[in-house]
Amino acid sequence: MKRYEKLVHDISTAIRSGVLAPGEKLPSVRQACLHHKLSPATVFRAYYELENLGLIRAQPKSGYYVSNHAIKQLASKSTPMPEQESTEVTISDLVFSILGSIKNPDTVPLGSAFPWPGLFPLERLSRSLAHATRDMGPAAIVESLPPGNHDLRRQIARRYLMQGIEADVDSILITNGAFEALNLCLEAVTQPGDLVAIESPAFYGCLQALERLQLKAVEIPVDPIHGMDLDYLEKMLEKAPIRACWSMTSFQNPMGVSMPAERKQALVALLTRYQVPLIEDDVYGELYFGMQEHRPAKAYDQAGYVMHCSSFSKTLAPGYRIGWALLPRRFEREVERLKVITSLSTSTIAQAAMADFLQHGGYDRHLRKLRTKFELQQHQYLHLIAQYFPAETQVTQPHGGYFLWVALPEHVDALALFQQALAQGVSIAPGPMFSVRHQCHHCIRINYSKPVDAPVEQAFRTLGRLMDVMRS
Amino acid sequence: MKRYEKLVHDISTAIRSGVLAPGEKLPSVRQACLHHKLSPATVFRAYYELENLGLIRAQPKSGYYVSNHAIKQLASKSTPMPEQESTEVTISDLVFSILGSIKNPDTVPLGSAFPWPGLFPLERLSRSLAHATRDMGPAAIVESLPPGNHDLRRQIARRYLMQGIEADVDSILITNGAFEALNLCLEAVTQPGDLVAIESPAFYGCLQALERLQLKAVEIPVDPIHGMDLDYLEKMLEKAPIRACWSMTSFQNPMGVSMPAERKQALVALLTRYQVPLIEDDVYGELYFGMQEHRPAKAYDQAGYVMHCSSFSKTLAPGYRIGWALLPRRFEREVERLKVITSLSTSTIAQAAMADFLQHGGYDRHLRKLRTKFELQQHQYLHLIAQYFPAETQVTQPHGGYFLWVALPEHVDALALFQQALAQGVSIAPGPMFSVRHQCHHCIRINYSKPVDAPVEQAFRTLGRLMDVMRS
Repeated sequence: MKRYEKLVHDISTAIRSGVLAPGEKLPSVRQACLHHKLSPATVFRAYYELENLGLIRAQPKSGYYVSNHAIKQLASKSTPMPEQESTEVTISDLVFSILGSIKNPDTVPLGSAFPWPGLFPLERLSRSLAHATRDMGPAAIVESLPPGNHDLRRQIARRYLMQGIEADVDSILITNGAFEALNLCLEAVTQPGDLVAIESPAFYGCLQALERLQLKAVEIPVDPIHGMDLDYLEKMLEKAPIRACWSMTSFQNPMGVSMPAERKQALVALLTRYQVPLIEDDVYGELYFGMQEHRPAKAYDQAGYVMHCSSFSKTLAPGYRIGWALLPRRFEREVERLKVITSLSTSTIAQAAMADFLQHGGYDRHLRKLRTKFELQQHQYLHLIAQYFPAETQVTQPHGGYFLWVALPEHVDALALFQQALAQGVSIAPGPMFSVRHQCHHCIRINYSKPVDAPVEQAFRTLGRLMDVMRS
Repeated sequence: MKRYEKLVHDISTAIRSGVLAPGEKLPSVRQACLHHKLSPATVFRAYYELENLGLIRAQPKSGYYVSNHAIKQLASKSTPMPEQESTEVTISDLVFSILGSIKNPDTVPLGSAFPWPGLFPLERLSRSLAHATRDMGPAAIVESLPPGNHDLRRQIARRYLMQGIEADVDSILITNGAFEALNLCLEAVTQPGDLVAIESPAFYGCLQALERLQLKAVEIPVDPIHGMDLDYLEKMLEKAPIRACWSMTSFQNPMGVSMPAERKQALVALLTRYQVPLIEDDVYGELYFGMQEHRPAKAYDQAGYVMHCSSFSKTLAPGYRIGWALLPRRFEREVERLKVITSLSTSTIAQAAMADFLQHGGYDRHLRKLRTKFELQQHQYLHLIAQYFPAETQVTQPHGGYFLWVALPEHVDALALFQQALAQGVSIAPGPMFSVRHQCHHCIRINYSKPVDAPVEQAFRTLGRLMDVMRS
């Protein structure tokens, strides 16, 4: 992070957290230079950036002030839970009609689940691909069979090690993206009709997996600040024979919340006590803002109950479809067996390319740049929401990932807004996609990974106008 | 095919079919020149080749004679069928211990399911990969989502068209190999507990798929000459609520038998009458010998009951994991839905590379060369079997693919032979792998895709010796 970026980060964090209030005056450039030991050029550049983000404004002959576009942060609240304890899942039709409709490349993809691929080092990846496949011998095919390419698994194990997580190379299973890993883990520990604890709201892929395997959902509320409600989870574990828990512990999709370390630890302890496996979806874990990495719940897994699933699809190479599961010994054999009998193997060439890139491509450097971009873009998108959305709008301000979860005023029906916006070339992800009982009617998820340009700004203007019309 | 190759083909076919009997004298070179209108050099080259194959031998000052290594062709016979009509499937443990044990690259892979990768144009594929990914834009990811890369589907549709099979580009779904396609199709039309008609013996992947989905197998005997027993199938359809039929209609694994066209047609008509979908596994269909292509049962599908699954894994690029299903409209949506919620998408880069190769790489030229190689190698392997295996051995002589199904004398237990051979660095595929009831105790499957070299010859010597010891 450059010096000016550090200053932008510090000031924007202060604004977001309320340390600096709307309308408040910032230190003068001279004061800031003295205080932070920076050159005037650096401070000017930071203030210029903050102004561009809409977080501060310059008042001629007076100085810089925190912008009045104050955004209400989505507050903690207790989610009403259903009277029955578990729910059959039938989400597919809704999700499919929504996913299908946003495939048009001319649509502004605020509803997309994918990161904007323009942010990825596609050329460097191609070089890795060429390099890795040029000398690929016939033996590569057998060597890529499950558990997968040995070099790739070694590189992944090294990354765990750097996080202080013990990972045996042979406990890592390469899959077709994290999504296959999650599905295989879930299938390995359940039978049709079983109960599974999931988040509410949840990643719709999780709901689809439950539907496919004919499992019943026990919904555990997710709070926008603290994550999964552990007291409620414990109550449910006490009451019902829950067979597995699926949770996105860092930068949860759609809410963006990351469980604090001590809560992750408590989650693992709780599930271990009930001998319930945790299927941890950690695909956004590497996309944290600032200096503090977000270690997964797996880091606290002493007893071997956490199956940790991740991929490179959100951070490096969306199309390569390379994911993995780090498995406790007790589940290794069964998950690998399912991998073999579901899709046999994962593409040899994609595995080899990923192994090469991890070794030579500068993955950590790329990640650092990506995190900075996402953090800046989050500010810009929050600014657009403040500018164009109704005043009652509340929004999360996650410390990582690339999603905002937006609670719109009561008069806005998210599904209707989705339909109308789509007709005007704008996609959003409506709340009911993320709920077993098709709830979250007033919520939408916004993907902020696309750099702001004229069409993005126009998209927010369109959404604001549509919501205005709905009010009347 | 070159002139001398044509002559080799004609004479070897005559020997295999018994038109030329063991010990019989071949036409002299002079006679052959006159008869076939060939130069002496061409005839000499052909005879030399046939001698190398062990099919003929030169007798000094006398001429050429059909070799005495006569091989008994596996005859048609009625397979005893179980008294109960359907069987729960629990094959995985056996198959896994076998598959795991043959991963060692130093083992002579006669038990492998893969074609020998040295036969594939790996360098040309790398060029296609580089070419296809060099200019790959960010939009490629969304465009590769199910049903998959449009260019690739268009190329596949063109190949169907050349076979006279109607194939809409949008009815083709790209998958992670044919195996995923087959699994998705099966899952789309069944519920746990349902009955599925399968071949006996069958590809073990089929047995594993039934086991995973908790389906019950109704075994239909496969005859080494005629393929699936259609009378028996009809009897079973009449008796029990069969929900699907899974069949490998061309060069069936493990028996190698290809159903004649009129029987494929009859199979489709029969299943259509009972409204039972046919899941057609056609991964070896392109590997026919001679000039006559083997069209799949799909070619006769008027009413839309055949889901045709294939891939490039056996014919071009084993490690790329690119397969597909050609789906009747009624199943399209459900199979695509399952693809999305199982593994989301198939690798963008592998799809693009395959599309490029189909367009520019000379796939048909490669296929022609591959077919000729497999046909020659089949002769060589049959010769090795005749040379080293016990005299009572019977073996299939398929008209395509790269498997021989070998019925060993009664005293040989295939599983014991498997274990003992593996300890000596030779893998074979023992019969019980291919049977729901772990039958076929005296049979093994031999993969003949690896060109004969000293280790292959040594492997046959080892197998012969082991069987000799078993006799005593």
